[in-house]
Amino acid sequence: MSQTSVQKFIKQFKLFENDQIQQTQLQHRYALVEAFGIKEGMKVLEIGCGQGDTTVVLADTVGESGHVTAIDIAPPDYGAPFTLGEAHERINQSELGARIDFHLETDFLEMNSDKQYDAVVLSHCSWYFHDPAQLLAYFKRIRSISKMLCFAEWDMQFEKITQRGHFCAASILALYSQFTANDGNIQNLFGKSEIGKMIEDAGMKVDLEVRVDAHFLQDGQWEIDYAREVSKEFAAAAVRIQTLIQNYADMLDVEGKNESLDSFVIVAK
Amino acid sequence: MSQTSVQKFIKQFKLFENDQIQQTQLQHRYALVEAFGIKEGMKVLEIGCGQGDTTVVLADTVGESGHVTAIDIAPPDYGAPFTLGEAHERINQSELGARIDFHLETDFLEMNSDKQYDAVVLSHCSWYFHDPAQLLAYFKRIRSISKMLCFAEWDMQFEKITQRGHFCAASILALYSQFTANDGNIQNLFGKSEIGKMIEDAGMKVDLEVRVDAHFLQDGQWEIDYAREVSKEFAAAAVRIQTLIQNYADMLDVEGKNESLDSFVIVAK
Repeated sequence: MSQTSVQKFIKQFKLFENDQIQQTQLQHRYALVEAFGIKEGMKVLEIGCGQGDTTVVLADTVGESGHVTAIDIAPPDYGAPFTLGEAHERINQSELGARIDFHLETDFLEMNSDKQYDAVVLSHCSWYFHDPAQLLAYFKRIRSISKMLCFAEWDMQFEKITQRGHFCAASILALYSQFTANDGNIQNLFGKSEIGKMIEDAGMKVDLEVRVDAHFLQDGQWEIDYAREVSKEFAAAAVRIQTLIQNYADMLDVEGKNESLDSFVIVAK
Repeated sequence: MSQTSVQKFIKQFKLFENDQIQQTQLQHRYALVEAFGIKEGMKVLEIGCGQGDTTVVLADTVGESGHVTAIDIAPPDYGAPFTLGEAHERINQSELGARIDFHLETDFLEMNSDKQYDAVVLSHCSWYFHDPAQLLAYFKRIRSISKMLCFAEWDMQFEKITQRGHFCAASILALYSQFTANDGNIQNLFGKSEIGKMIEDAGMKVDLEVRVDAHFLQDGQWEIDYAREVSKEFAAAAVRIQTLIQNYADMLDVEGKNESLDSFVIVAK
C-alpha cells in the first residue's frame, strides 16, 4: 500500500525521482503517517522535521485543504549530502510547497504562537534530546496547542536476530555521547515505557501503541558503520565500559545480513 | 551424550541425586569438559572452582589415574544455599574426593607452587575479574605452569531471540558494577575477541574456539531476575545511563520464554 503511495507521490510531485534511498525512506514515512492517523484537511505541526522526509508525506496526506508547519532547531546549512536549506528549497518549489511552512533555527519551547493544531508530530527525533526533562516540557506544551500527539521512534525491543546490529549500534552511540568528548547524535535511548510515562506526566493518555515494520530501511547499516568507527574512541572510558563496547562492537554483524530496528508509534490525546 | 554421563555420574558417585538444578548444570559441565579436551590421567588445575560444579566433572573425566587441584579466592562460608565449604565437604566424602584437592581463599597469583599441569581450567569465572590486566597476569602465569589453557564463558553474541533477556541482564549487571555502590558480581563482559587477544598477549596460541549450547541452563533466568531488581537502583547514574537501563530492563522478557546464552570455549596452547 505504501509502495503505491510512493509511486503516486513521485509521479505527482516530481520529487526524489532518481533517488532510491529517498524512495525507501518515503515508504516508511507513509506507514508512520498512516499509523499516526493523519487525515485530509488537518493542520499539523511537525517538530524536528530535518530534511523534510516526513514533512512531504504529511503534506500529501493532509491535501490542499490541510497545512503543515515544520520546524527544526538546526540551521539551514546543516546536513549532507543536501543541507536542510537546500532540501526545503527543493520541496518548496514542488506542488507541495504551498501546503508547508518550514521554520529552521526554531526552538519549539521559545516559539511564539497561539495557533492550535489537529496534530503535533515528533518522528524519530526523540533520541537527539539531551534531557528527558526537555522532552517532557515539549509534551506539556504540545498538550496545550493540539488535540493529538503523534510520536515515532526506533523500537529497541527487536524480535529478529538480524536487527541485533542496529540495537548494538544504538547502544554504542548512546554510550559514546556519555563517555567521550564527541559530536554524537544519539543522546537518550527513550523506549516505549519511558515515553508512555512522560505522556502521562504531561496529562495526556496513550490512545494507540503499534509497531511499524522498518527492517528494510538503510538506517540500521548507517548506524552500524558509524558505531564501528566510534567504538575505537573509548580509550579514555572506564575499563568496564571498554569491554562492554568491545563486545557490542563484535556483535554489529549478523552473518552479514543487517536489518533496521522497527519503529514504535504512540498516539496520545 | 552428556545426559548419559550425568546419569552414570549420579549412580556412581551418589551426588546430586535429588537435585534437578545440579543435574542440569552437570550436563552443561560435561559438554564444556569434553570441548576442553580433558582426558583420563591428566593433572588439572581449576581456577575459580566455586561450589565445585565443574570440578566433579573434571575429576570424573581424569579418572583415578588423574588429579584435580581446585582453587577459589572466596572463603569457605561464601555461597548459598550451600556454602563453598559445605559443598566441598560433600564432594570430599564421595568417591571423587580422593582425586580432588580444594584450596579456598587462594589467590592464583600468590599461590606458591612449582607444580606443572596438563591443563588449567577457567570456566565461567572471567566476568568476575575486576581488571583485564589481572586476567592477563593469570594467563601469563598459566603459560608457565601448563601446556594448555581451557577457557569458557557466556557468549554475548546470541543468535536466538529467546537469549535476548540474558544478554540484556548481563549488560545491566556490568553497568551496575560500574555506576552504583553495590555488591555486583559481573565486572567485565569479556568476549571472544578480547580473550583471544589476551591469549596472544600472554604468548599462547588459540588452538580451538567453539560454541557450546547452554540455552537449557537456569542461569539466564537467575540473572534476569537479579537484573530486574537492580535496574531500579540507577537513580544516581547519569540520565543517559538511566534511559539505557530502562530500555534494557524492558527487554528482559521475550514472550515469557527466556533461555540462557550459550558458552564459548577457547583452548589455547
